[in-house]
Amino acid sequence: MKDIFAELISIGDEILYGQTLDTNSHYISAELDKLGIRVKRKVTVADNRDAMMRAFEEAEANADIIIITGGLGPTKDDLTKPLLAEYFDSGMKLHEDILEVLKERFAKRGRELNELNKGQAELPEKCLPVDNKYGTAPGMWFEKDDKVFISMPGVPKEMKYMMEDTIIPKFKEFYKTPVLIHEMVKTVGIQESILAERLEDWEDNLPKEIKLAYLPGLNQVKLRLTASGQDEKHLQKLIDQEVDKLYEQVGKYIYGTDDTNLPAKIGELLTEKDLTIACAESCTGGYIAHLITSNSGSSKYYRGGINPYHNDLKINILGVKKETIQQYGAVSEQTVIEMAERVRELFGADIGISTSGIAGPGGGSEEKPVGTTWVALADGKNTQTKLYHFQFDRESNIEITSNSLLNLVRQTLSSK
Amino acid sequence: MKDIFAELISIGDEILYGQTLDTNSHYISAELDKLGIRVKRKVTVADNRDAMMRAFEEAEANADIIIITGGLGPTKDDLTKPLLAEYFDSGMKLHEDILEVLKERFAKRGRELNELNKGQAELPEKCLPVDNKYGTAPGMWFEKDDKVFISMPGVPKEMKYMMEDTIIPKFKEFYKTPVLIHEMVKTVGIQESILAERLEDWEDNLPKEIKLAYLPGLNQVKLRLTASGQDEKHLQKLIDQEVDKLYEQVGKYIYGTDDTNLPAKIGELLTEKDLTIACAESCTGGYIAHLITSNSGSSKYYRGGINPYHNDLKINILGVKKETIQQYGAVSEQTVIEMAERVRELFGADIGISTSGIAGPGGGSEEKPVGTTWVALADGKNTQTKLYHFQFDRESNIEITSNSLLNLVRQTLSSK
Repeated sequence: MKDIFAELISIGDEILYGQTLDTNSHYISAELDKLGIRVKRKVTVADNRDAMMRAFEEAEANADIIIITGGLGPTKDDLTKPLLAEYFDSGMKLHEDILEVLKERFAKRGRELNELNKGQAELPEKCLPVDNKYGTAPGMWFEKDDKVFISMPGVPKEMKYMMEDTIIPKFKEFYKTPVLIHEMVKTVGIQESILAERLEDWEDNLPKEIKLAYLPGLNQVKLRLTASGQDEKHLQKLIDQEVDKLYEQVGKYIYGTDDTNLPAKIGELLTEKDLTIACAESCTGGYIAHLITSNSGSSKYYRGGINPYHNDLKINILGVKKETIQQYGAVSEQTVIEMAERVRELFGADIGISTSGIAGPGGGSEEKPVGTTWVALADGKNTQTKLYHFQFDRESNIEITSNSLLNLVRQTLSSK
Repeated sequence: MKDIFAELISIGDEILYGQTLDTNSHYISAELDKLGIRVKRKVTVADNRDAMMRAFEEAEANADIIIITGGLGPTKDDLTKPLLAEYFDSGMKLHEDILEVLKERFAKRGRELNELNKGQAELPEKCLPVDNKYGTAPGMWFEKDDKVFISMPGVPKEMKYMMEDTIIPKFKEFYKTPVLIHEMVKTVGIQESILAERLEDWEDNLPKEIKLAYLPGLNQVKLRLTASGQDEKHLQKLIDQEVDKLYEQVGKYIYGTDDTNLPAKIGELLTEKDLTIACAESCTGGYIAHLITSNSGSSKYYRGGINPYHNDLKINILGVKKETIQQYGAVSEQTVIEMAERVRELFGADIGISTSGIAGPGGGSEEKPVGTTWVALADGKNTQTKLYHFQFDRESNIEITSNSLLNLVRQTLSSK
């Protein structure tokens, strides 16, 4: 059993020019990782003959599997198909069956196939076509000696469908790979360097099969443990032991492992305790509601939310007292307390949460500069508040406010 | 004047394993592009000596500027600093001034510097330190013959600060670059291949200075025009002429150019017509509110929103009739009509919009499968509705519903 290595090639000027964020290689990496296939390198090159051909050659020398995304559209700036035909010294062939499928699909929408789309049914002879449910460009699977070259469109939906429907099942059949187990331990509310100091002894004594990485983010640090070897049971046991030790040492900062995100963790805690939540958001403008409702099944514990951007709505719909806003302002402890308590009552939830702050870039004053943010949590008995002074841009201020308040919910629920 | 080329190197197992999305190289690409520096290639390699050293060598052979992100933290898996010291054959030096700044910064937060953080003040002798306002790891700037190597932390905030504060100003001083002008023309509601067919003649007759690319997304296609040459005025005129032609041919699908996003465009139209908007979201759960309020200044035209996830809240707070939901269900034309009309009145807005659908993966039925989505727009005179059948995952169903409804708002406002 030998390691299987992959190299990913993303094609596109738009990625190099910073106009499109490459999420494809991120998704593909995660999928290959689950199969125990190691991505050794990722390369992004321009829609340019020389750069693409050089990337194909380097990747072939470097890896067993070469996965190419992009450059497959019907338009003239798309070079992947002709260049792969050239690379594999292959003529072109019209696939009548693919043409038929395209015609039918267009007919269903009451449209006729145009010349550009017809060309999509023509592929290099030496490749196997890969079905594309969501678009018109088929993928391509080439084999050369022991190496596999795969080309997929750059549109994420189309690429993902091909991975799930064709590529991953084929890989499972082709390759026997070493066992690789990852576990991500997610913390919130502690700085990377403090965490690292607390965990120094533990880290020095990790078993040799386990590798550790720190992945810092906005108010969150993730610890990734990777075990590699032959014996899955043994590796899983090693990982479990080390995760237990982590909980012993820094458990109060850990909100979950692996695919958990903070709102999902809160959903879990709410479900466990049979409680519901509602939110009244001013500065976060719906973002917390979005984070909560992005988890399927959230209707079990999420009652609903309101984002009364203007003060008259905070007063007339939510029921915050006019005098409170007049006396203390919308961004004040008194206002977030009433917002949390009122949304709890009005929406019939067990827990009400609220935010009010100045996300920026405008709206700051000397007394309340941009980044000044109040949050509150009301559970019917107590109402807790927190004041933050964030110094990021608008987007990050909204995100870190949401993370911080969700962490307060987590802490409160965990101690209940 | 010669072209200046850059190569970007991202360091990190977490990127190769698909656990962290690399947004840094995206940001850096866009910034370099504005300076007329061409990113030729991006490479991501593991936290591994051989892979990193090889990447440094290849990049040096390939480009004038090499920008490295990641691998600079205080922890043991961070290799960038020692390897760059080795690559440049440089000893280490403790920077007392950096140590002082770190001590002060920690003291302000009532904390003491730990050993790991102290080590951050030690840097290779041959580099110039780059100030890091938001973190403890300084960046590094190395020069070797005509080449520049820059190393920055992988934390986006820290990297962005260094780019803005040090790197970009230094580049502006160092390099004279060819003129490169980009214009992004953004369309919504038309498929890539149909757009390409309509624009075929126009594309064939583009001036030789201009290059075109199609960038497809969820219900949106962007057209990127890039002009390169010497004479900025001439190039800008060429671009303007071609954008005018695009508006003539496919103007009704174009919602804006360059940095505009769809919610910002709607903000512009609302401001222009002195109108306000409010939203009642069920299946989109706060996402539309978030998109609108992500734009600073949105309080001018956004009154607020509600996401009454449960039916009793749709009835008791928003005022949808109980009989409507009983008779037709929450996901129905009748319900979204009442939601849009009621939120308009209740929130005192000129325009009310609403969504109700089954985002999935659960909750579908034979009559109303996952993806069934109703949206409505009420302006006090008419109430328009649309029914969609999306077939994506939960996240994309939420996103495309939001895009589609915002496009309806755009069309309605544009025709007013």
